[in-house]
Order: sequence, then C-alpha cells, then structure tokens
Amino acid sequence: MKIGLDVFGGDYAPDATVLGAIEAQKSLDKDQQIVLFGDEADIKKRIEETGGDSSLFDYVHAPEVISMHEHPTKAISQKPNSSISKGFEFLKEGKIDSFASAGNTGAMLVGSMFSVKTIPGVIRPAIATNVPKLKSGFGILLDVGANADCKPEMLNQFAILGSLYSEYVYGVPNPKVGLLNIGEEEEKGNNLTISTYPLLKSNPKINFIGNAEGRDLFTDHADVYVCDGYTGNVVLKLAESFYVVTLKKGIKDDFFDRFNYEQYGGSPVLGVNAPVIIGHGISTPEAIKNMVLLSKDMIVSKFIDKIRSAFN
Amino acid sequence: MKIGLDVFGGDYAPDATVLGAIEAQKSLDKDQQIVLFGDEADIKKRIEETGGDSSLFDYVHAPEVISMHEHPTKAISQKPNSSISKGFEFLKEGKIDSFASAGNTGAMLVGSMFSVKTIPGVIRPAIATNVPKLKSGFGILLDVGANADCKPEMLNQFAILGSLYSEYVYGVPNPKVGLLNIGEEEEKGNNLTISTYPLLKSNPKINFIGNAEGRDLFTDHADVYVCDGYTGNVVLKLAESFYVVTLKKGIKDDFFDRFNYEQYGGSPVLGVNAPVIIGHGISTPEAIKNMVLLSKDMIVSKFIDKIRSAFN
Repeated sequence: MKIGLDVFGGDYAPDATVLGAIEAQKSLDKDQQIVLFGDEADIKKRIEETGGDSSLFDYVHAPEVISMHEHPTKAISQKPNSSISKGFEFLKEGKIDSFASAGNTGAMLVGSMFSVKTIPGVIRPAIATNVPKLKSGFGILLDVGANADCKPEMLNQFAILGSLYSEYVYGVPNPKVGLLNIGEEEEKGNNLTISTYPLLKSNPKINFIGNAEGRDLFTDHADVYVCDGYTGNVVLKLAESFYVVTLKKGIKDDFFDRFNYEQYGGSPVLGVNAPVIIGHGISTPEAIKNMVLLSKDMIVSKFIDKIRSAFN
Repeated sequence: MKIGLDVFGGDYAPDATVLGAIEAQKSLDKDQQIVLFGDEADIKKRIEETGGDSSLFDYVHAPEVISMHEHPTKAISQKPNSSISKGFEFLKEGKIDSFASAGNTGAMLVGSMFSVKTIPGVIRPAIATNVPKLKSGFGILLDVGANADCKPEMLNQFAILGSLYSEYVYGVPNPKVGLLNIGEEEEKGNNLTISTYPLLKSNPKINFIGNAEGRDLFTDHADVYVCDGYTGNVVLKLAESFYVVTLKKGIKDDFFDRFNYEQYGGSPVLGVNAPVIIGHGISTPEAIKNMVLLSKDMIVSKFIDKIRSAFN
C-alpha cells in the first residue's frame, strides 16, 4: 500500500507535514508505505534534521509548489512538476493508492475530477467533513463546498456517498441520513430540499430519517447530513468559528475538543476513483498524521470499491 | 402609542406573556400603552392573581387561539376572533401601532403580508434576527426563514431593510453589509450570491463591504449579514444550538450570554407597513418584556417611515 502525501501543501508546510509524516509512519505496518511528494533533497534533509529516518519513506521529486491562492485549473496545467500535479499523476497511474494534501483546495478538486476522474454514475463528487456529536463520535456533513449549486439528484447521491463513508470508513452500521432543512415536515424547505425529499425517501440504498434542522447537527438525530455545498460550507465555517471561540476563551470540554480538525485529519473528496483527502489549510503535524491514517483507513476499507458497486 | 401583544402566543403563554407584559409596563411612559389580545376576563384575572394592576392595560377580547402547528393561512381565515387575527385587524386599522406574538410564526407572516401588507416597492418582507458579536453588541442576520428561495434583487432589498433596522432601531451609524458567502473573492459563491454581489456593490443606499463567510458572523466584519431564508434559518438554529450546549455545560460567558434570545425579545418582520415582531416559541417573561420594548423602539424610531422613504 502506497499512501501519497503532499509535503508542500498547507500554511505550515513543509515543517508540519514532515513532522506529521514521521509520526504517522510509526503507526503504520511494514507494507504501508508513505510516498512523499515535493523537493526530494529538501524533504530528506528536513527529516534527518528533525531526527527522523529518511529511508523509511518513498519519494517523488516535485520541485514546484502550487500556492494557496493560485487559480486551480491554471496552476495544475502550468505546473506539471508541482507536488499536487505529480500526486494526481501517480494516483491516476495507480502508483500510489491515495493522495492527501493540505494545500490549494481548488487544485485538489480539479485534480480529483480531471485526473483520477469521477466514478461512473456519480454526477458530481462531494467534499465531506466530520461534525462532532454531543454525546460521542461524529456525524458526516456533505457537501461542504465542491458544488455551490446542486440539483436534487446530486443530493440524493451525496446521501449514498456519505452513508458508505460513514459505514465503511467509520464503522457506523446502517447510518441514518438527514436532509438539512428548515422544518421537520416533508413539505417544508426551499425548492431544492422539497424536490430532494421524495428522492431520499424512495432511495433503497440509504436509511433516510427525514429532515434535520440546524439545531440537530450536533445531536444523534442522524449520522449523515446532506445539503448543497454553499450551505454546507457556511455551516462548516460557522462551526469552526465556534470552536475557535471556545479555544480563545480557554473552555476545555470533550465535546468542543471534538471540533478540533486535527483529530480527523481532513475532508475526503467522495465519488472519485481513488481516495483523495483535502487537509485544513492550517494543518498541524497532528492533523497531517491523522490525514495519513485516514488515507490508510480509506484504502483498507476498500471504500472506493463500495462506491463503484453502489453506482454500478 | 399603542403596543399590541398577543397574550396567547408561545409555548409558555399565557403565564409568561402576562408576567412579561406587567414587567414591560413598568418601563413605559404614560403615553405608551400596552394592548393585550386574548380572552379579556381570563387575562385580567391572571394579572390580578400575580399582583399586577389590570387597569394599566388596554384589552381586545379575542377568545380564539391559533396553536403552534395550525396551518397559517387556514387558521387566520377560520379563526377571525383569534388573538393573532384580531391583532392584525387592529394593526391594519391603525388602532394599534405595533403587534407582537410568540405564537405561530407562519400565521404572523401571513398576517403581516396579507393584512398590514408589504410596503410598496418591497418585493418580499424578511425576518431579521440578532447575532452577537464577540467583542460587544449585535449584528443583524436576514432573511432567517420568510423566503426559503430568493432572487438576487430580494437579497439586495434585504440589505437595505437590515441596514435601516441596524441604523435606526439599534443606532449603528452607516452599518456595514456583508453577503453571506463561501469565499472572500467577488467571483465566489453559488448562482444566487454571484448574481447578488454586483447589485449590492452598486447599491448607493447601503455600505457594502463584500462577502462574509460563516466564520465572520460573530466578528466585527459586518453589522448586517444578508442571505436567503433557507441558509439564514439553518445558521440561526445552529447558533441557537451552540448556545444551548454552553448552557447545558454550565459555561458562563458574556459572549455566549448574548446569544440568549430573551435579551432581544424577538425577530421583526421587515418590509411591511407596521412594526411586527415574532417572538421565540419558548419566550419567557423576560423575552416578552423585551419584545414589548423592541416594539416601542420600532415605533419611536419611526422605522417604518424610513423604509417607506428608502423604497419610495
């Protein structure tokens, strides 16, 4: 198993990514190999400087870097030797089994869709994120930004993608799916959610439990929350800001701690032909480590095969 | 000045509404009269029982009650002697200067639009709510549920309505308007926000500062946040649920305290021909008191005239 990691993606890269990779490697089995993408000599030097063993990793030399604010499509085509471009090249060719980066989100999406490509039958991939539950564990929220405008059939597919992710990567049996909406009743909502409800209700591949309101998101109401990418992104960033407030105020609490993105490592792009994970821009070594471990879990669970079967 | 209050609206009515009215009355001047809508004899008895003086209030006998889950349009037409129907009848005829209820939100909206009616030039009224700022004070978020689907021109009008509310009712000079969106850049967003941005940018009646993300909502980024009613409602209920979590966990903090809906009394329906305020279903006496005082502020500020001028 080859787990691809972009060493030059993220606000704290390459320091944080190198440290995260070293930590992740300690948790992996012998046949689980991390492949580092970036300036090879530079990475090796950094690993040795921090007391790590550079021989424990594989390398793909990629001297160019796509910065956080570059135009995704242009950057990917103009910088074929960037760590992100090389990562997707190797992922497409099957030379690595997953690719993760805390770098340019747009470039990661473009690479996912135009390089490894969408799984046949999937209209559009979605980005999923974890939302902590008050009691314990996580729910899944998607889409959180890949598709600002959605059609009902897309949300219906997100429900399947999210359910499979919840079930096979996080081990939640028969995950409950809720439609993020503005009322409990079936007839409530905007045009999108009103049209989506009957699709979800009649979808035999999911365990649909009806509408979920904003207040339900952190409860046991559902395991998978489905919405358009505009709404999901607003909700995600709002929730993150609450967590930041609790941090600033020095509030220590198990529930708020579970908002910490470092714990779950990153947001997967669901619906493409390989595991792709987008890390938070401010990923720390802990976040990078968990992003690598999540990559491993997605490979081990044969999650991509489950999606292919569901959309076959 | 006659301030109309529905005594039979809200989960804790009529106990909470009677207590709230008694408290509010103590803060009012002689010429500021509360008019209570509901079963007159019953209300008087309750006021006397709680040690109040029933002669300090005006009454409009309205023996019927529209419950929380009745169909708004049907209920208003089938129960002309309900406290909400009577309230809007009196408001339309100018016999009261404002009307507030913590009862059926839909009925309050229907009454607003079909009885006192939308101000000429306003496409659709919006419901506004307060969002606390981390440092101090409040921002305004609208729409939070009157219009699940919006057109760009509606959001452009919400920006004006929210700005006037912020400026004249809360005394914020030249309030900053932010478009709730999923990126800082002008070209980011869904179809609605991308089309709305240039309208806001060229609107001389507002102080547009650009896009606002979910994480900006509780900062000093803007004073007025504009979005469609679906998104606003999800955001509002999510924020409320955070507040409930902090309460349950016994976290005491000035910022979280300012989430307490009791402090600001209710959500105004902006864009109709009279001040209408919808209280939270679980309004306590404190919330009812503040709803009455907000009604007074909306009358004193001649807020409705400001809207009429802006849309003239």
